[in-house]
Amino acid sequence: MSTAPAFNKAEISITASDGSEFSDVLAAEEPLEIRLGFPDGTHRAISITMRTPGDDGELSAGFLFTEGIIDSREQIKQIRHCGLKIGKQMGTLDRVAALNSNTIRIDLADDAAVDLKKLERHFYTTSSCGVCGKSSIEALRTSAEPMSGNQLRIDAELIHSLPEKLRESQSVFDRTGGLHASALFTEDGELDLVREDVGRHNALDKVVGRKFLDGGMPLNDRILLLSGRASFELVQKALMAGIPVVAAVGAPSTLAVELAAEYGMTLIGFVRDGRFNIYCGGQRIM
Amino acid sequence: MSTAPAFNKAEISITASDGSEFSDVLAAEEPLEIRLGFPDGTHRAISITMRTPGDDGELSAGFLFTEGIIDSREQIKQIRHCGLKIGKQMGTLDRVAALNSNTIRIDLADDAAVDLKKLERHFYTTSSCGVCGKSSIEALRTSAEPMSGNQLRIDAELIHSLPEKLRESQSVFDRTGGLHASALFTEDGELDLVREDVGRHNALDKVVGRKFLDGGMPLNDRILLLSGRASFELVQKALMAGIPVVAAVGAPSTLAVELAAEYGMTLIGFVRDGRFNIYCGGQRIM
Repeated sequence: MSTAPAFNKAEISITASDGSEFSDVLAAEEPLEIRLGFPDGTHRAISITMRTPGDDGELSAGFLFTEGIIDSREQIKQIRHCGLKIGKQMGTLDRVAALNSNTIRIDLADDAAVDLKKLERHFYTTSSCGVCGKSSIEALRTSAEPMSGNQLRIDAELIHSLPEKLRESQSVFDRTGGLHASALFTEDGELDLVREDVGRHNALDKVVGRKFLDGGMPLNDRILLLSGRASFELVQKALMAGIPVVAAVGAPSTLAVELAAEYGMTLIGFVRDGRFNIYCGGQRIM
Repeated sequence: MSTAPAFNKAEISITASDGSEFSDVLAAEEPLEIRLGFPDGTHRAISITMRTPGDDGELSAGFLFTEGIIDSREQIKQIRHCGLKIGKQMGTLDRVAALNSNTIRIDLADDAAVDLKKLERHFYTTSSCGVCGKSSIEALRTSAEPMSGNQLRIDAELIHSLPEKLRESQSVFDRTGGLHASALFTEDGELDLVREDVGRHNALDKVVGRKFLDGGMPLNDRILLLSGRASFELVQKALMAGIPVVAAVGAPSTLAVELAAEYGMTLIGFVRDGRFNIYCGGQRIM
């Protein structure tokens, strides 16, 4: 599995602290403008993110889905990359040509109705508490399904094995330490899909977007491994994708735990050095 | 130095992988809405960020400054936190009361003229390349000063010592691993100021905002240490603050190096395990 096309990174010359010169690769970072094209022919920019080039179609489709703008791939007519028609099968994208563009456009199908207000829905205010974590969690109710009924069960030993499996699959990350990774595993611990990015939300959007474009939603039999910390935003994206178990190599935040607990998800942190912590949803870990 | 007021974190109960129960603290994460108040009495929200509560006045002032919206503290009339008048001396803020609000408002002075278009300036397009890293770098020209003439010189041995000095000063970070840190050091390696946050851009805005409110700009005799990776956004904020030397415990991105090189900054990465890499501006390291 290759997750590091050539334009994901750049080789540059570096001076070491002992004064010696060498060259190494760095993770690439470039802005990506995501535009939404409407059936009447108009279009508008809805997001600009600093991302690692590659899998831009997946990133943009995953962004629209995890933000609640679209909920089925039939709502997408086509994905264009700087005038380049990519279609829904991103595997056919000419990756080198794609590098020439930092603008991607998703054209909606004629009958697709979208609610752009969802882009601001994390921050809906409630009369009781204004802008706050509680309202951020409540705002997801219209889009997300509670997962308390999900019967997935995972062996604790399997959890321990996930970070090493992720590392084995990563190329850029290993050499530069500059990329966040998101990886999906099956309930048997088999690596299903991994994506890397300078932005951790982008890495997860790429993973979810790939599955979304393949018609693989919801991901209710998958485990998500995050290479770093688990923030509210990452747990929210996993929730939108229906992933019942989120495991992070780093620490979760308070709001990430609150969100996961509220929706019946399993949230695990500090998966390293032969241990991990279960913050909620422990019934799924055997 | 305490950087961990009580509402920065929350204690929760956790199940360990061996089945034992214990409690630990997690880094707090809550949304903060930053509003700008204009002399005519109107106000508007200009940003919502997921941040660790505390130092919200510094965070918002730092955000406005590093994004190029304001350039002197005289442009600020007052900073209000949920109806609570904080003034420019943030040390007088009642931190517990502040927790009750996730909305902060910066009122501009009567004669302050601001350009809100600067909020989008990273992404100005150029006719030559559209949205791209090059245009992101070019867009900073109107706000940022090149630092190639800066004569700061730092001993290489001093660089090695910075991460340990940062760790000694961190409380929440050490216990939870959940916070990013930004720290300013003097040219003699003395820790000047450190701030922590679940968002690395917020930690840096808090540091810069504190100095900005104190009238300490530009920070042209300071070293910035980042606890993680160095992205474009972080180097851009350091550039706006006039910091000539940025050192990161993690890796930089390609665009971070390009930006630092373009403006004559020194960018150092992988400051750990007794080594570091110099990506540009090596003349400042002796």
